[in-house]
Amino acid sequence: MSTQSPPLNVAMIGYAFMGAAHSQGWRVAPRFFDLPLNPVQHLICGRNPENLAAAAANLGWAHTETDWRTAIARDDVDLVDICTPGNTHAEIAIAALEAGKHVLCEKPLANSVAEAEQMAAAAEKAAANGVKAMVGFTYRRVPAIQLARQLVAEGELGEIRQVRAQYLQDWLADPQAPLSWRLQKDVAGSGALGDIGAHIADAVQFITGEHITGVAGLTETFVKERPVETERVGIAGVGGDELGPVTVDDAAIWLARLSGGAISTFEATRFAWGRKNALRIEINGTQGSVAFDLERLNELQYFDAREGTRTNGFRTILVTEGEHPYIAAWWPPGHGLGYEHGFTHQVVDLVTALAEGTQPEPSFADGLRVQRVLDAVERSSAENSTWTEVPA
Amino acid sequence: MSTQSPPLNVAMIGYAFMGAAHSQGWRVAPRFFDLPLNPVQHLICGRNPENLAAAAANLGWAHTETDWRTAIARDDVDLVDICTPGNTHAEIAIAALEAGKHVLCEKPLANSVAEAEQMAAAAEKAAANGVKAMVGFTYRRVPAIQLARQLVAEGELGEIRQVRAQYLQDWLADPQAPLSWRLQKDVAGSGALGDIGAHIADAVQFITGEHITGVAGLTETFVKERPVETERVGIAGVGGDELGPVTVDDAAIWLARLSGGAISTFEATRFAWGRKNALRIEINGTQGSVAFDLERLNELQYFDAREGTRTNGFRTILVTEGEHPYIAAWWPPGHGLGYEHGFTHQVVDLVTALAEGTQPEPSFADGLRVQRVLDAVERSSAENSTWTEVPA
Amino acid sequence: MSTQSPPLNVAMIGYAFMGAAHSQGWRVAPRFFDLPLNPVQHLICGRNPENLAAAAANLGWAHTETDWRTAIARDDVDLVDICTPGNTHAEIAIAALEAGKHVLCEKPLANSVAEAEQMAAAAEKAAANGVKAMVGFTYRRVPAIQLARQLVAEGELGEIRQVRAQYLQDWLADPQAPLSWRLQKDVAGSGALGDIGAHIADAVQFITGEHITGVAGLTETFVKERPVETERVGIAGVGGDELGPVTVDDAAIWLARLSGGAISTFEATRFAWGRKNALRIEINGTQGSVAFDLERLNELQYFDAREGTRTNGFRTILVTEGEHPYIAAWWPPGHGLGYEHGFTHQVVDLVTALAEGTQPEPSFADGLRVQRVLDAVERSSAENSTWTEVPA
Amino acid sequence: MSTQSPPLNVAMIGYAFMGAAHSQGWRVAPRFFDLPLNPVQHLICGRNPENLAAAAANLGWAHTETDWRTAIARDDVDLVDICTPGNTHAEIAIAALEAGKHVLCEKPLANSVAEAEQMAAAAEKAAANGVKAMVGFTYRRVPAIQLARQLVAEGELGEIRQVRAQYLQDWLADPQAPLSWRLQKDVAGSGALGDIGAHIADAVQFITGEHITGVAGLTETFVKERPVETERVGIAGVGGDELGPVTVDDAAIWLARLSGGAISTFEATRFAWGRKNALRIEINGTQGSVAFDLERLNELQYFDAREGTRTNGFRTILVTEGEHPYIAAWWPPGHGLGYEHGFTHQVVDLVTALAEGTQPEPSFADGLRVQRVLDAVERSSAENSTWTEVPA
Repeated sequence: MSTQSPPLNVAMIGYAFMGAAHSQGWRVAPRFFDLPLNPVQHLICGRNPENLAAAAANLGWAHTETDWRTAIARDDVDLVDICTPGNTHAEIAIAALEAGKHVLCEKPLANSVAEAEQMAAAAEKAAANGVKAMVGFTYRRVPAIQLARQLVAEGELGEIRQVRAQYLQDWLADPQAPLSWRLQKDVAGSGALGDIGAHIADAVQFITGEHITGVAGLTETFVKERPVETERVGIAGVGGDELGPVTVDDAAIWLARLSGGAISTFEATRFAWGRKNALRIEINGTQGSVAFDLERLNELQYFDAREGTRTNGFRTILVTEGEHPYIAAWWPPGHGLGYEHGFTHQVVDLVTALAEGTQPEPSFADGLRVQRVLDAVERSSAENSTWTEVPA
Repeated sequence: MSTQSPPLNVAMIGYAFMGAAHSQGWRVAPRFFDLPLNPVQHLICGRNPENLAAAAANLGWAHTETDWRTAIARDDVDLVDICTPGNTHAEIAIAALEAGKHVLCEKPLANSVAEAEQMAAAAEKAAANGVKAMVGFTYRRVPAIQLARQLVAEGELGEIRQVRAQYLQDWLADPQAPLSWRLQKDVAGSGALGDIGAHIADAVQFITGEHITGVAGLTETFVKERPVETERVGIAGVGGDELGPVTVDDAAIWLARLSGGAISTFEATRFAWGRKNALRIEINGTQGSVAFDLERLNELQYFDAREGTRTNGFRTILVTEGEHPYIAAWWPPGHGLGYEHGFTHQVVDLVTALAEGTQPEPSFADGLRVQRVLDAVERSSAENSTWTEVPA
Repeated sequence: MSTQSPPLNVAMIGYAFMGAAHSQGWRVAPRFFDLPLNPVQHLICGRNPENLAAAAANLGWAHTETDWRTAIARDDVDLVDICTPGNTHAEIAIAALEAGKHVLCEKPLANSVAEAEQMAAAAEKAAANGVKAMVGFTYRRVPAIQLARQLVAEGELGEIRQVRAQYLQDWLADPQAPLSWRLQKDVAGSGALGDIGAHIADAVQFITGEHITGVAGLTETFVKERPVETERVGIAGVGGDELGPVTVDDAAIWLARLSGGAISTFEATRFAWGRKNALRIEINGTQGSVAFDLERLNELQYFDAREGTRTNGFRTILVTEGEHPYIAAWWPPGHGLGYEHGFTHQVVDLVTALAEGTQPEPSFADGLRVQRVLDAVERSSAENSTWTEVPA
Repeated sequence: MSTQSPPLNVAMIGYAFMGAAHSQGWRVAPRFFDLPLNPVQHLICGRNPENLAAAAANLGWAHTETDWRTAIARDDVDLVDICTPGNTHAEIAIAALEAGKHVLCEKPLANSVAEAEQMAAAAEKAAANGVKAMVGFTYRRVPAIQLARQLVAEGELGEIRQVRAQYLQDWLADPQAPLSWRLQKDVAGSGALGDIGAHIADAVQFITGEHITGVAGLTETFVKERPVETERVGIAGVGGDELGPVTVDDAAIWLARLSGGAISTFEATRFAWGRKNALRIEINGTQGSVAFDLERLNELQYFDAREGTRTNGFRTILVTEGEHPYIAAWWPPGHGLGYEHGFTHQVVDLVTALAEGTQPEPSFADGLRVQRVLDAVERSSAENSTWTEVPA
């Protein structure tokens, strides 16, 4: 059982939305899974001492630090879990790796290819010393997405020919939605593209086991100005009538080719009224198809073209069986999981890789690859959608 | 925040499927909700010392006891959480209440009306002393079911006219599925009727705010004998070729009237191939309808008949908005919850009622009411389905 | 091709909703199917000469008669198609059979078991002379329902264990809906029970190939009085404030056993807000399940329990492939059919049986069987839902 | 009633798949709709006399001609209905218009922009003389698509911001599917792009009331060679082992902007295993969204963002109510229509426009506009997906 395993002391930097989700992952994983290392919620780090103390108590962290440099320097920290906005990832992650700490860094890996390249280089260097880095594309841990990947990897779908991937939300469709840090290019890097487009870029590459090799992109900002928040980061209210400029994209769409020859369409938007968290991926191969929608995350649609036509059709697989990924640790069939289970599964996979000395996935190199796709989309968009290769 | 509230020391009796689920509820509730009492996983109780120690470590309980009588007698225990099979509920619950401990008892409340009546009487007596009892129909805590109840309570559906309720599983459709304790009348009380039929009886009464007043029932046991398990309770293997008799129903169906005049059909079965955990409830009122399926637990279908026909239709409400029950404590819209969240919400509601000194619901009286419905179904079934009143 | 086949002169009695549907069946069948007899829209019969002439021109019938006795006596009539309300079926059908005319009679066969028995006897007598009678349960001709039957007949589902059948509409949920002839017991026989309950009784018996052997029933009339129409039959307006009594059931629910041992629930209602024409049937066998909903009539849900769990789930079969029943005559895959195609298929099956000299199905005996089920439901309902055998 | 209206003598050229569909339209429209002109299936035209005679008898046409030039020259022909492959459209349509005959021409209007321009010019010239031309994008006649257009036109969705349109089929996913005329560039013009991509281009422009102003495209041919058929046009068998080159695209994807500022993704493919006829369109506006899937053609999904969040969600509108487009002529609510009803509705709209002397829509100018979109997609695809303006 996990509690008899050696401890893994975690220091988490940041404690907003992602901090709560990561905390749940660290808290729950050792209770349901028999882990080779026992993760300990050891240290939480943030700048505001008052808020930090409350977060530590609420989220269940034993100690606090207000300076991340101090946090990563502590001898009693084994792993640094970075939950801050993207513009801080590179500095913290590289410093932590250099300090010999394993790193889990939330996605997107960075706000630019240049930063991501530095991080991937730092991760590679650290790996030589047995220090591991992973980027937090948690949707890889949804059992249905894992099952889709398994089916592709086992050849059940044949060669992949077409992919359509969408990540549709609607929380910015209201022009009065406030100008949060996610709409500031200097903090967030990009808009829908980096926030949710990154997820579909990673998920498609993960499921297919292929790379996006080139894109033709188009980005758009529908609402150019929005009400300014009184605080830019954190739990914020909207302040008066002041408007500020939105400096990121509201939506991004792109065509892409995969390394195996498939062609695909991608769309990331926060303007799709009625779609709350619709990460949808459909993949057509030469022998079958799969389709997934995060709004029904316990289901995978699967069509096996090798069966007789008469009784064939897309099957709604309820991915809640003991033989499905991660499920044996949970509940009986049909007792579905939720969003946050991805964070628990992320801990399981990360801790297992650390104990085994293998590279946890997705690596910083994987995160860099996603960053290059996003960058190619932006460059293509700036150049009349002209086809733009994604560097290997 | 919860951790600054007075502690509520919990003793959990039993640690199988329900024990794991309840533990997760106690563990997680204070992390996401600001509770007036801070529940502490204080004591776990079971007969086998070795298994018990492992369970305590895995599930995160501080102390152990192998005798439930000792456990409930301890001064450092405030609440007893009963997760054992139904045949033990009455004895433990009554003793705990008499010892002045609050009680949370898993459903069904008991295996017979007689036991349930004793328990309800004990609960009423204890309540006079400020000691509270609640029965664990956790599906009441699914946000979509709560929303359905709110819509009915607010009059949005008008008068309720028809209900169709089903709880469909398939884990016994295979005749080689082993003879677990759930198939033994002396332990489980009844089969699909008490195990899952109890859920739909309670859920319908909860959502409509009405009582089932009479039934015409029919129960059936399709597979009369099954392979005997080597152990009857707990994690068990199947032992050889020996067959034993199934002494409970495999499926139960019944017609019912509600106190407001509605007519309804109910079905509980473990033989519906392909349905894994399909608790489905449809309610038609004079002004609208709702429909729910536990296999898609984050969704509620809602039809408002007062709208214009041209653009009307069932709406798929994704019950993941901040204004939906319990959701403000969790994630952004569209980030769904899972099965186990019901146990967290159960802790929230129970702890809140304890702190406020109000009766937590469902009460033992509510549990008795469900028991009387099940009993009436069995009696009707034994008497040619003749209409059988459910005692008030 | 059909037009080179010998003619089959049809006389249709009645021309309201069902008259239009039947006319479309006669009109279209020979255009898409290669029929052994070429049906001719020869004669239409109704009481009002003016309306009759308009109907003949609109619906495409060559001749008219205002007296059905004259119509069935004509030498140039080969088949009588009865589309009048149920209270006239027995007299017309028996007279037509005695006159040596084949008969197609709309469902329900009659308004009482006694009438239905007379009709079945007349049909049996006529059959000895090569004169055939069929009752118009057109939903048997929906390709998805035929496919369900095939799967059962081929043993793909194993033994049938459970059935849930519902026919849900909402056109009477509004208490201001007028008192049409369908709400008058003397004309319609019964309410939801006979009108739509008959369909599910027949469809379940058709798909399973079994008989309903006993029932426990409950019927209810929610709205006791409704606005009187100015005309009781035909296209009618509502006249003023006058209210009249509803003399039939608004909803009927019943438990039933099938001849093979299955248990089942049935529900017929016109009060299910938001459900427009939801004839829903789910069947669970020992090896699999099927589910159907007439609101998505081109789809059949199918679960094959013999497949591996990992990729198993209900398949949505789009029943539009060339190898599916009737489809080869129509369009490419995915180009769905509609409601009225059932009437075309009915003509195909009827005409084929007439040419081959075989008994077209469903026979009057099948119609009588349904009538006995409905009668047993009414009797059980009148006797406290006590189990009531359906005579063989 | 239609039969009392002046006759409109129709000559149909071609009688394969589209010929059968158009015949059903002409046949059925006057039976359900009160038309101001009574269409008469007067003349059918094809090259093979034997097949032609059979088609005339099967499909119900009174006369035959083997030379389309003779057919359009006949004085007893009022309208020419062109159902031949796209490479013949221009010549026939222009000659018919010059002969003073109204023209209904199947889509796509032509195989090239040059031809389409000539046709549009001929149509404009003919219109000056009261001779009308229409192109057959029948999906405009699906009630749910009409309803979507109405909602947009009435401003219910606000400004359109995003569109995703897909037309997914799978009949070429099998590499052994034969080399039909649809895969020959000289006959079909293009592949998925012109055959089904044309439908989504037209449908999006129709629903939104906007034009596609520019595109970035990508086309692909996955299977380069296929088995040669023994006949290239008509009902054909596959002949032996001979392979021939596929000279059209298998799939086409493109980004597009609409005239109102929306951005969109389009995809047309015949390689999406399991998708049989999935024309799917989702539109997001500033006030709401609609979504449609031709595989469930009687349904429209609608989200109205102006409603309160708590009970909001996509509504499944069953577009079968009397107040929905075309439905009053058909059946009661919930009794769905099928694919072929579009052809009946097309006749209704065309005949009504002819009687009223208005321009039937979609006009040849509309068809030309679609052709220009397809052409821009091909040109963009040939030029590295570079953004390509669609001429106004």
